[in-house]
Amino acid sequence: MSLRPARQEPIAGLYEPVTPAGHAVLDRLRGYLPLIRSTAAEHDRAGTFPTGTFDTFRKEGMLGATVPTELGGMGLDRLYDVAVAILAVAQADASTALALHMQFSRGLTLGYEWRHGGPAARALAERLLRAMVAGDAVVCSGIKDHHSAVTTLTPDGSGGWLLSGRKTLVSAGPVGTHFVINAQTDGTGEPPRLASPVVTRDNPGLSVLDNWDGLGMRASGTVDIVFDNCPIPASDVLMRDPVGARNDAALAGQTVSSIAMLAIYVGVAQAAYDLTVAALARRPEPPQAAAQTLVADAGSRLYALRATASTALTTIDVLNTDTSMDPGERGRQMMRPFQHAKMMVNQLAPSIVSDCLTLVGGAAFTAGHPLARCYRDVRAGGFMQPYTYVDAVDFLSSQAFGIDRDNNYMSHWAIRARSQGSATAESPSKLLSR
Amino acid sequence: MSLRPARQEPIAGLYEPVTPAGHAVLDRLRGYLPLIRSTAAEHDRAGTFPTGTFDTFRKEGMLGATVPTELGGMGLDRLYDVAVAILAVAQADASTALALHMQFSRGLTLGYEWRHGGPAARALAERLLRAMVAGDAVVCSGIKDHHSAVTTLTPDGSGGWLLSGRKTLVSAGPVGTHFVINAQTDGTGEPPRLASPVVTRDNPGLSVLDNWDGLGMRASGTVDIVFDNCPIPASDVLMRDPVGARNDAALAGQTVSSIAMLAIYVGVAQAAYDLTVAALARRPEPPQAAAQTLVADAGSRLYALRATASTALTTIDVLNTDTSMDPGERGRQMMRPFQHAKMMVNQLAPSIVSDCLTLVGGAAFTAGHPLARCYRDVRAGGFMQPYTYVDAVDFLSSQAFGIDRDNNYMSHWAIRARSQGSATAESPSKLLSR
Amino acid sequence: MSLRPARQEPIAGLYEPVTPAGHAVLDRLRGYLPLIRSTAAEHDRAGTFPTGTFDTFRKEGMLGATVPTELGGMGLDRLYDVAVAILAVAQADASTALALHMQFSRGLTLGYEWRHGGPAARALAERLLRAMVAGDAVVCSGIKDHHSAVTTLTPDGSGGWLLSGRKTLVSAGPVGTHFVINAQTDGTGEPPRLASPVVTRDNPGLSVLDNWDGLGMRASGTVDIVFDNCPIPASDVLMRDPVGARNDAALAGQTVSSIAMLAIYVGVAQAAYDLTVAALARRPEPPQAAAQTLVADAGSRLYALRATASTALTTIDVLNTDTSMDPGERGRQMMRPFQHAKMMVNQLAPSIVSDCLTLVGGAAFTAGHPLARCYRDVRAGGFMQPYTYVDAVDFLSSQAFGIDRDNNYMSHWAIRARSQGSATAESPSKLLSR
Amino acid sequence: MSLRPARQEPIAGLYEPVTPAGHAVLDRLRGYLPLIRSTAAEHDRAGTFPTGTFDTFRKEGMLGATVPTELGGMGLDRLYDVAVAILAVAQADASTALALHMQFSRGLTLGYEWRHGGPAARALAERLLRAMVAGDAVVCSGIKDHHSAVTTLTPDGSGGWLLSGRKTLVSAGPVGTHFVINAQTDGTGEPPRLASPVVTRDNPGLSVLDNWDGLGMRASGTVDIVFDNCPIPASDVLMRDPVGARNDAALAGQTVSSIAMLAIYVGVAQAAYDLTVAALARRPEPPQAAAQTLVADAGSRLYALRATASTALTTIDVLNTDTSMDPGERGRQMMRPFQHAKMMVNQLAPSIVSDCLTLVGGAAFTAGHPLARCYRDVRAGGFMQPYTYVDAVDFLSSQAFGIDRDNNYMSHWAIRARSQGSATAESPSKLLSR
Repeated sequence: MSLRPARQEPIAGLYEPVTPAGHAVLDRLRGYLPLIRSTAAEHDRAGTFPTGTFDTFRKEGMLGATVPTELGGMGLDRLYDVAVAILAVAQADASTALALHMQFSRGLTLGYEWRHGGPAARALAERLLRAMVAGDAVVCSGIKDHHSAVTTLTPDGSGGWLLSGRKTLVSAGPVGTHFVINAQTDGTGEPPRLASPVVTRDNPGLSVLDNWDGLGMRASGTVDIVFDNCPIPASDVLMRDPVGARNDAALAGQTVSSIAMLAIYVGVAQAAYDLTVAALARRPEPPQAAAQTLVADAGSRLYALRATASTALTTIDVLNTDTSMDPGERGRQMMRPFQHAKMMVNQLAPSIVSDCLTLVGGAAFTAGHPLARCYRDVRAGGFMQPYTYVDAVDFLSSQAFGIDRDNNYMSHWAIRARSQGSATAESPSKLLSR
Repeated sequence: MSLRPARQEPIAGLYEPVTPAGHAVLDRLRGYLPLIRSTAAEHDRAGTFPTGTFDTFRKEGMLGATVPTELGGMGLDRLYDVAVAILAVAQADASTALALHMQFSRGLTLGYEWRHGGPAARALAERLLRAMVAGDAVVCSGIKDHHSAVTTLTPDGSGGWLLSGRKTLVSAGPVGTHFVINAQTDGTGEPPRLASPVVTRDNPGLSVLDNWDGLGMRASGTVDIVFDNCPIPASDVLMRDPVGARNDAALAGQTVSSIAMLAIYVGVAQAAYDLTVAALARRPEPPQAAAQTLVADAGSRLYALRATASTALTTIDVLNTDTSMDPGERGRQMMRPFQHAKMMVNQLAPSIVSDCLTLVGGAAFTAGHPLARCYRDVRAGGFMQPYTYVDAVDFLSSQAFGIDRDNNYMSHWAIRARSQGSATAESPSKLLSR
Repeated sequence: MSLRPARQEPIAGLYEPVTPAGHAVLDRLRGYLPLIRSTAAEHDRAGTFPTGTFDTFRKEGMLGATVPTELGGMGLDRLYDVAVAILAVAQADASTALALHMQFSRGLTLGYEWRHGGPAARALAERLLRAMVAGDAVVCSGIKDHHSAVTTLTPDGSGGWLLSGRKTLVSAGPVGTHFVINAQTDGTGEPPRLASPVVTRDNPGLSVLDNWDGLGMRASGTVDIVFDNCPIPASDVLMRDPVGARNDAALAGQTVSSIAMLAIYVGVAQAAYDLTVAALARRPEPPQAAAQTLVADAGSRLYALRATASTALTTIDVLNTDTSMDPGERGRQMMRPFQHAKMMVNQLAPSIVSDCLTLVGGAAFTAGHPLARCYRDVRAGGFMQPYTYVDAVDFLSSQAFGIDRDNNYMSHWAIRARSQGSATAESPSKLLSR
Repeated sequence: MSLRPARQEPIAGLYEPVTPAGHAVLDRLRGYLPLIRSTAAEHDRAGTFPTGTFDTFRKEGMLGATVPTELGGMGLDRLYDVAVAILAVAQADASTALALHMQFSRGLTLGYEWRHGGPAARALAERLLRAMVAGDAVVCSGIKDHHSAVTTLTPDGSGGWLLSGRKTLVSAGPVGTHFVINAQTDGTGEPPRLASPVVTRDNPGLSVLDNWDGLGMRASGTVDIVFDNCPIPASDVLMRDPVGARNDAALAGQTVSSIAMLAIYVGVAQAAYDLTVAALARRPEPPQAAAQTLVADAGSRLYALRATASTALTTIDVLNTDTSMDPGERGRQMMRPFQHAKMMVNQLAPSIVSDCLTLVGGAAFTAGHPLARCYRDVRAGGFMQPYTYVDAVDFLSSQAFGIDRDNNYMSHWAIRARSQGSATAESPSKLLSR
């Protein structure tokens, strides 16, 4: 007698990839899950980055998953499938998923530059993308300035730039070889612009700190990096809009960069739920009334969680390939479902995990228990950009009411930094000592 | 200058049909929305059925929307597209959507009999389906026994049956021409079976009561019907499983019959939200802090609501055409996402509507205000079968824990009725007097 | 054998009065509960005011419950005990409780004028209070202007005033003999002031409309009243602060006027819960898992609901007698717990009622079912002043952050009305025709 | 100029003690708060017990706070005031509050034995209570058996007992000098009984493990203790009911032992809220819309949290002194409000803390941030006995529906242990090696 394997809920809900590239990436990733799973607790406890795992990813070309096939990558280009892959990794370890997402995300955004950018941007992007495929590059991004510094590009007088400042919350920093960060020019000669310089690990002014000690996501290597007059050639800077330009076109790239991170929290919730149901099913006594109710409720919230993230990803994948639209409108249409989904993910996923702790009972309250890790990791979702909950309310309500405002959070930060900057920014040499 | 219309979030989320038939049905329904909208308040107030609207539906072939094209219908066969159509109607009036859903649902389930049933079932189904197209039939279903009676088929001694009992909550009853109800045989000769006789309006033993007076859904004509020894030819009875058979295959048909009703509550929530945002946007003063927060929160819940229903419908449409699976497993795989989605719909939709009342303020608390109607109508979702919340917890938790049980709620009812029936069942003549 | 009656949770939680006057009032009210209960459904259905009940209250001195004993009243002066009494009535009928609360509230606020006001105010208050005891007065308050009019006092040239405007949401209006309303002077001669004229039923310019048709609270007679140049002697006007004065002392009176209304929603939730538990306990089968869970959860929310309202009332009763404090600080200290409690009541009470509908099932969805009435009535809590949810967020957050603002909602309204008034206000003769 | 200090919401809500003893204890504890606060982060990080703090408590008589004055203690006997004291400590450090609560709780329960027990129990209680006052005793309780062992008393053949087994989750274990544990007799000669032996630290068979490593409450020293044939004189055993006796009288003692622990989670939520509001108030920009809304909402939940715990404590203090009631009924009447309050505390407190993280932003997600500690500590509330959420639903729903069952969770455990015990229990020597 042969048992026909049960089909899991298919098609939608982030259960399966929808492209061949998605299947290929997921299949390969599945091979790493035992390794990831087996070292997760130890890295969580010690707060260390899983360098071994990432070395393997590098050597085996995994970091080129989202690099276009023309450049030797695996050509994964659907956000939906990126999310399915990240979800699988997150079920084993959320920190690894977060760090890996950064690579997948860089492949996508640099791939966009390579396809649609000007000649300089295309050359820079191609260089980085080929290096990712070859295993020579781990490209990290640095978005958020440390409160003590405004990260600024100053002309070096001979056509290049000097970069100073400090970025915080740079995931995978310990293994990063290139850092694509957002900065602003200092306004000499022309109004200040947003810009994305690429800083290589061997830049003499760069320091990668070893200062990550999170409540959760402890193995994600989410460190600070400090720039002390880093020389940056002009060819390594992607120029963006002037500070204060209201350009909602930027929302498209921000959505693409970040939306698949929702899958991390879906994965954590799914892992917690599976583990919990299995634990209760093993008990000799039948489940009590409240256990039945919580399992049904949490299962339904998990379903909604998957469905909501899945639907946003599907929609955004379509918009992502539609370049006929007005760029600002396209940016807003991508950001809206992303933010709606993000608000729900950050409400539903933690509630599922918390109910799982309730169901499993006191054992889950020990530091090393997988559910205790889920409880800490899942809370990270609320702090991911764009946007925080508070900023998302401003964005979504202004969209609902038709109120015009600057929706680019990087531009917001840049403006705020300029107005407060002189008071709080400090010299880079001081920044290192924290 | 031409304005490019903004694309609403497309593809997923029940914003647009996915088949040509879905588009055709939706386009035609849109033509009726002004009529539906303009009479909704009055029918709600008086608790009357919108007979005029349904006469128009009948005459113009609208009740054949889900009848196969081979039989002259419009051939709408995707539950997703049924839901998109119902959602549009529900935004105008939830009661009308509920009554119309019953027709669309009958088209689908009778279409299934016509394609997959035995010769007798196929003949019966074809007759009804052609009549729906011709505008000669409004086919209602009656599921739930009145507490006072077990609806029972007794052999009439000459190969036919006599039907007695009482059904409650039969929507569109006032205009129903045929009633497909679930009953059980009385066990004479062979063990009692579940069976679905079709009772025509002119059956001498049939009484359609005028007893609907709901908290909400007041225009849905959700009345009781009483059977007093109705003669039913054998050819008008669809035979099902013996009472007590555990046949999860039945869950497939139950899912198909009911899942698109979720769109009613999605539509109510969407209508409430749209109306509220428009009202606040008209106010001269900018929205206060809590109004911004509630609008963003409720909008995100609305997004999750659409996404969750949408994902379940997409999944179930695929399973619905996959006849290669084990029928029991297929039934469970269809019922699970339906129930997960239903639990979330019944949590999210009322919360959105309630927040809308908060945002609009005291004006919404008058009986005739559209939001007051939404507040009453949206609460109906929790009472739709299958399952109620309490039964859904039993189903979903047993599925999660791998506990075997009878998942067919009609079978449950039949068993319970048999054990309690003799004590409470009364003669039909008495039933009429209530 | 004698059964010792079980002590219900005593002392705190609004289970029992704490003063002898509270016991006396509650004991007398209990005698009316059968009458109130027996007519509630019919008045709800028809939207009629229980005039018979209030005639009885009048004749038997019940409207003097909170009038000081020195003036012949029953001397109930603790808000806690007022709430216990109102809660008992609300369990029978929320509308009656709302209308009765208005009388109890007037007794308290007029009692304050009588004790602490100037000579004119004391004389006016005494007159009204003695009439309440004698059964000659039913004193209603009118707070909220109809959107079409700013209720304004204009000097009549001979020392008195002429009052024009329209008030909406005046509970017990059908039986009101005196209306204490808030208005503003027109600014002739001196800056506009807030003022509270008392208008008697026989005033030639007064019209009491019969226009209440609420979603819930349908028997509360919450009508509009229109003033068309009503002559008001100076002695019948209580003068307040100038419009725009930031005087948080007014918050004390607003708290005293309104906080005991929280007990209405506690009562509705308690009634729904009791009815539901009794219905489930009568069923032959044991409660299913989700029923057990919901009953325990809803019971706990009910406990928190009672505790939260109870604690706020206890605190405010103490502050109410402490006249040594700075009046503004006292106002804020009274309003804060009131608003905290109000926010929770309006969250917890509707959720309990909704869970009760779920537990009882489809029967609860008929218009006349007691739970359907609870579902409609309980939603009124969110619309009671002060404050609505949106305004409460402004008040509570500014209190938390130490942000100075005008907390008097009547003053807010007056200022807004002045700025928008000329555009929207209409002549009273037109107002009548709506 | 002198500023009149603002009165915090007084009287109810756990803001102030209600007895002189309560004031005395709180005043003395306040002196220790700077010490507790200053070492909390370090003990949390390392998972070490604050032995220094407890040495000070011991030396300065603080552990006699709840010991009757007749025995030299401070005579604190109101649970309300115990909670106020514990709340203050928990605002500084939840772990210390948990460990200190255990002492206060022992003083209360041993005080009850001293007043109401038989001669042997009274003598034993007096000895321990006097030692607590003198600083010679830190009395811990051990309730929950390690899953591997049933803690059992076997007659030693000469009138005493031998104790074997293992207890888990014994807070303050590292400094415990006496352990009052619950065990059962082995059934030799007479049916097995529940019993509470007192084991002294120097008992040759006792091992206090150093195995606490919690998700939160990391400084509470919540270790396992192992008994390997510990000799226990008969005079050191408090005999309870036979295993399986349904004696709800035991619920009274269980309530008294545990209810004041609710104040720990109230304190954590209050600390998180205060810290958050202060952080936001310091920011140069005004709070955004969602920040205002969350602060008002969370503040209201905090109010309800305090009110609910406060009301339960007030009620239970009254019942605690009422020995005229039927003991079983009294036990149930004490346990019901405790459990209602516990369910709400475990829902409200974590939600407040989580909102505080949202408001403060990414900084709160670092391991050492006070809010990160709050987030971990506050989750402990769900695991405290009696009861867990799942068991509380069984208790409260059976109380609501009038279903008779054994409500003594210790008895439950004993019965389950007996039925499963032989399969899983292991020899104590093996237990040590884990």
